[in-house]
Amino acid sequence: MPYLNHQILLDSHADGLPEVSNFIPAKQTINHCDADKVVIRNHYLSVDPAQKGWMSSAVNYASATLGEPMRALAVGQVVESNLEDYEVGEFVTGWFGWQEYAHVGTDKIRRKVDPDQAPIKYAVSIFGLNGLTAYIAMKDILAPEPGETLLISTAAGAVGSIAGQLARRWDCHVVGLTGSDQKAALCCNEYGYHAAVNYKSDDWLEQLRRACPNGIDKYFDMAGGWITDQAIHLMNHFGVHAQVGTAAVASWDPVPQAARRERVILLKELTQKGFIIFNHTDRYDEATTQLGNLLHSGELRFHEDIRDGLDSAPQALVALYQGTNLGKTLIRLIGEE
Amino acid sequence: MPYLNHQILLDSHADGLPEVSNFIPAKQTINHCDADKVVIRNHYLSVDPAQKGWMSSAVNYASATLGEPMRALAVGQVVESNLEDYEVGEFVTGWFGWQEYAHVGTDKIRRKVDPDQAPIKYAVSIFGLNGLTAYIAMKDILAPEPGETLLISTAAGAVGSIAGQLARRWDCHVVGLTGSDQKAALCCNEYGYHAAVNYKSDDWLEQLRRACPNGIDKYFDMAGGWITDQAIHLMNHFGVHAQVGTAAVASWDPVPQAARRERVILLKELTQKGFIIFNHTDRYDEATTQLGNLLHSGELRFHEDIRDGLDSAPQALVALYQGTNLGKTLIRLIGEE
Repeated sequence: MPYLNHQILLDSHADGLPEVSNFIPAKQTINHCDADKVVIRNHYLSVDPAQKGWMSSAVNYASATLGEPMRALAVGQVVESNLEDYEVGEFVTGWFGWQEYAHVGTDKIRRKVDPDQAPIKYAVSIFGLNGLTAYIAMKDILAPEPGETLLISTAAGAVGSIAGQLARRWDCHVVGLTGSDQKAALCCNEYGYHAAVNYKSDDWLEQLRRACPNGIDKYFDMAGGWITDQAIHLMNHFGVHAQVGTAAVASWDPVPQAARRERVILLKELTQKGFIIFNHTDRYDEATTQLGNLLHSGELRFHEDIRDGLDSAPQALVALYQGTNLGKTLIRLIGEE
Repeated sequence: MPYLNHQILLDSHADGLPEVSNFIPAKQTINHCDADKVVIRNHYLSVDPAQKGWMSSAVNYASATLGEPMRALAVGQVVESNLEDYEVGEFVTGWFGWQEYAHVGTDKIRRKVDPDQAPIKYAVSIFGLNGLTAYIAMKDILAPEPGETLLISTAAGAVGSIAGQLARRWDCHVVGLTGSDQKAALCCNEYGYHAAVNYKSDDWLEQLRRACPNGIDKYFDMAGGWITDQAIHLMNHFGVHAQVGTAAVASWDPVPQAARRERVILLKELTQKGFIIFNHTDRYDEATTQLGNLLHSGELRFHEDIRDGLDSAPQALVALYQGTNLGKTLIRLIGEE
């Protein structure tokens, strides 16, 4: 005490793609710790596709507030505590925002993190939204069966790469859609996809058709938009489509127009189901345990795109939508190289 | 023998709404009954919304063939038989088409009909596609729970009126969408809907909102199109939407454009699922038994729109899409008044 706290505030809503100019740096001084709070020094900040939705002025399941540090998950260490259950020196993860220090109560803390179990940064990557989303949406919506063809869009991303490895482990024929030849190669060479297609290729749909000779049974879809407009026609009767994200739709204001899907859904008796990780907290324990087992036995690979310093956060978010990142994007404030 | 067989042939595909000019009358003489066939004298022909899809030149789950009697369910009596399991005088229902006589094998026969159990016409109405669709789609996709708000589009129709009565029986708050004030009144007065809204009213969406003060949990949707574009925004989180028909979409050639639904599906974690009755034959027994019980105890009401004479069939089909019919449309060739 006191702590000089550098922050990245949300300065304006973004209804299209996020821009660096939506954010503004700020600083404050934390002079004391409130009676029902702790002060946390953030070590890693999370950068997630979902932040685009939180920045929107439209109604969403969660919103970032103008003039406040950008809503984000983070992992850090307790440096002051007036909460009985939290001791100075313990690591915790939660909604600590894009800032160096978080002065928060229990409502913002998700859980404690044991640094002896795994690197603390995993709390906001594999054990954060990405791994949980991959495991729970796969298991609860798609329920993949051995031999089924499972398509994953944004296949090389922080969520997709884990989903792909899970599907492979569950003995599916696993096919990925991704935005570059380099990422397609990564899908096949690192994440165990049987095939991966670069949707920026002119003949991507024909490539996808060849990669799915028995059609598509299950579709783990974080893209939506024009990609899914095409891919959905390769789905088999009684196919299941999990809508986990909509990265291929640049803006929802106004809501873009597209070919109606009622007929293909009806004729193929498809199931489509939306998924938001925050409404499935009862499934976190199973997911964390299963992912932890795979990780410790060396069977799960994932890439991190670690950028240093608070000021790199806005550009890191922008890069998510340019498709230039690889794997999970993290902002490192303190920590091992 | 011989039988002079008047027929209504499909003369041209219809990719928009069916027109009388898509059909042409014809006659043939059936001089003998093949070794593996029967000759059936049709008593009632079915007129169904699904026939529009069968008339399309686009790929569908089933098609009517140009130059053949229009694909249709019918119920009739065996007048000649070379099939061991079928005796002259027995009643049967199946794919006998819009014609006076059907010279068919077992592939076209769905089942025998007992005239002592119920009027034979029920085989193509309440025990035909309509009742089965209502029961099975409701039970297997929507699984209504007491207290849930259940919306039904084309609420006064042959399927919707049964679905509404089932939902009421299962203690849902049942709300209908229909195309006239007269039908809306019928929904409430005859079929037990708690409320029904005429979607041709200027303020129909506001009326619907008031009729669903707790939002919509389940949606039995035979309309799709512009009606569902609006109604879907009233659905509750984790709502379930059964796509059983697309009557509000006049043509699928070209596929019409509409506002993308990925975002509302994702944010509300909705489930949407298509349904085609023909892929659920394993559920027919339960549905027929349950509907029969309700019918015999006088708890199920349904309206029939019976038109006399083979030549009335094309206009009866056209009328389905004008919304001027009430209940299940049947063509009577022979039978009680």
